[in-house]
Amino acid sequence: MRTELCDRFGIDYPIFVFTPSEKVAAAVTRAGGLGVLGCVRFNAADDLERVLQWMDENTDGKPYGVDIVMPAKVPTEGTSVDIDKLIPQGHRDFVAKTLADLGVPPLPEDEARSEGVLGWLHSVARSHVEVAVKHPIKLIANALGSPPKDVIDQVHAAGVPVAALAGSAKHARRHADNGVDIVIAQGHEAGGHTGEIASMVLVPEVVDAVGDTPVLAAGGIGSGRQVAAALALGAQGVWMGSAFLTAAEYDLGERLPSGRSVIQEAMLAATSSDTVRRRIYTGKPARLLKSRWTDAWDADGAPEPLPMPLQNILVSEAHQRMSESADPTAVAMPVGQIVGRMNEIRPVADIIAELVTGFEDATTRLDGIRG
Amino acid sequence: MRTELCDRFGIDYPIFVFTPSEKVAAAVTRAGGLGVLGCVRFNAADDLERVLQWMDENTDGKPYGVDIVMPAKVPTEGTSVDIDKLIPQGHRDFVAKTLADLGVPPLPEDEARSEGVLGWLHSVARSHVEVAVKHPIKLIANALGSPPKDVIDQVHAAGVPVAALAGSAKHARRHADNGVDIVIAQGHEAGGHTGEIASMVLVPEVVDAVGDTPVLAAGGIGSGRQVAAALALGAQGVWMGSAFLTAAEYDLGERLPSGRSVIQEAMLAATSSDTVRRRIYTGKPARLLKSRWTDAWDADGAPEPLPMPLQNILVSEAHQRMSESADPTAVAMPVGQIVGRMNEIRPVADIIAELVTGFEDATTRLDGIRG
Repeated sequence: MRTELCDRFGIDYPIFVFTPSEKVAAAVTRAGGLGVLGCVRFNAADDLERVLQWMDENTDGKPYGVDIVMPAKVPTEGTSVDIDKLIPQGHRDFVAKTLADLGVPPLPEDEARSEGVLGWLHSVARSHVEVAVKHPIKLIANALGSPPKDVIDQVHAAGVPVAALAGSAKHARRHADNGVDIVIAQGHEAGGHTGEIASMVLVPEVVDAVGDTPVLAAGGIGSGRQVAAALALGAQGVWMGSAFLTAAEYDLGERLPSGRSVIQEAMLAATSSDTVRRRIYTGKPARLLKSRWTDAWDADGAPEPLPMPLQNILVSEAHQRMSESADPTAVAMPVGQIVGRMNEIRPVADIIAELVTGFEDATTRLDGIRG
Repeated sequence: MRTELCDRFGIDYPIFVFTPSEKVAAAVTRAGGLGVLGCVRFNAADDLERVLQWMDENTDGKPYGVDIVMPAKVPTEGTSVDIDKLIPQGHRDFVAKTLADLGVPPLPEDEARSEGVLGWLHSVARSHVEVAVKHPIKLIANALGSPPKDVIDQVHAAGVPVAALAGSAKHARRHADNGVDIVIAQGHEAGGHTGEIASMVLVPEVVDAVGDTPVLAAGGIGSGRQVAAALALGAQGVWMGSAFLTAAEYDLGERLPSGRSVIQEAMLAATSSDTVRRRIYTGKPARLLKSRWTDAWDADGAPEPLPMPLQNILVSEAHQRMSESADPTAVAMPVGQIVGRMNEIRPVADIIAELVTGFEDATTRLDGIRG
């Protein structure tokens, strides 16, 4: 399974995997794909620096990338204390009452409280770029579209191509015009921030809209058949995320006696019908695992979610509390509809191997149909 | 492009096209696909009988099918007068005010008022089956899932296979257990009644769920690349609808000076972002062209849609008025996200030819990627 992107990036397969786990990212890279480490969880640049040093030592000199979250429109800036003041008390009360109703235990007294994901503040995302370009990264992707022009220039000056997610052909064209090198067409079925147009329609529209700019297909991809479908639609590769949240190497989050995190337990149990697209995680529409937490925000009397970045700061301690509890029915986690196919914990190398053989089987079957 | 379904149905291509237009259905059949005539618009069995006679005379002895709309749960029955009484006055007032606000002209005094689509009453759908099985039809599809067992038996006794739409693997499995012969996996991006799971995820789930029962992929298919993607996902054929609403042969609806209907003008202008999934057309969630009419139902103060079949009866005269006006910004029309690719009026034979050559091009490209 080789496209032009394999030569361009020095990878065996055009499989790009976004993951918050450096263990998974490194394993993807070692298995012949391109592991892309999500930076948004690093509020402190030093933490990212340490993890990228680890990546350098554990990728056998093979290529990897990083993913930042930089909104096109600059959001509210300031320290977390300043931003805290912008959150209405009614919202805080709703969160407290909901956690009590759901039976989510408080954090231990001595545990540090998460201050929320600050990675979508421009200042923090810029610090991620500063750190990353000093490492031998081969790609910087922005999960929220084109980064500002000076950031694109900075990344290009370091010899690194820029990728940007797009949920419509119009956005994709804008990214290409802005100098983005690779467009990721992210369909409605994808996890996290996602638009309304499904991959089957979106991918060929984006391919046709951006001319020579290569397109990765994202959303709904978890098997070799789906890789074949994505490439049939004209993509030069796939961008995956959800399917690697149940990789054996994924070690973020507290472990339950089963050896899995509470979020992994929830994902293993979910069907493709068990996701919702809501603004409650970040302030922008993102597909999440359906849970008693998302149900509470859908109920009568629940407040409207706040804009980015306030919403995530509002719910950050709630996320921390739920991820440290043992109840898989009350979790907050971005994941795509492909969660219905995530039914076992598998090593990254096995997932990649199935993508490759499944692609070969599907395309061989298509040859028989073409005759 | 041949799958087992081609031999089973005696067709050249596994392309099944649902259409309310007998002209389009016959042209699809003559072009080597299987034209499937939608019966829901025939409130009187005699009208359907006349049109099926026309089909018999215009399909050169090649196979065609029909599509009925029979909800699994029996809806409110009765004459249209009885049913009329169940519609709240507040809903009628909202419709009247909205049409006035949108500037939609009244119907001419002497024109018959549509009594609404009664085809989803079981009694009417059963009359469609009665009429259809006396013709040499090769397929009866039900747009709302498994028909009742006695209807399946009646159709099978006539030697005709039954197809049923499914929006989830669970529903698909139930259809297969009920004796349905072909499952149509209809993704979120499809026009008309549709679920939440997108085709990329739904199709392989349904294929895996129903064992040997053949699956047609529906939702998001309008080009040969999308046919290739659907078959890569494991479908044995495609079920299309929207893409043939702008076929040259489509002659339903009053013509504007352009030679097109107001609805066709609206579809030609729309992008893939210009659809919404709402209950306002039939009472069940259906994807519609976004318009000032759908916007009005989304506005603050709009009433909740009524259940099937009341909602369609409520809005039937409004639909008639909008379809006879000349304003493409105020229309009510089920269509899928593929509407963004419906940018010209083309003969059915040209659409089919592009599907076939596009499939060949896409699968040849995949061969190069497989190496």
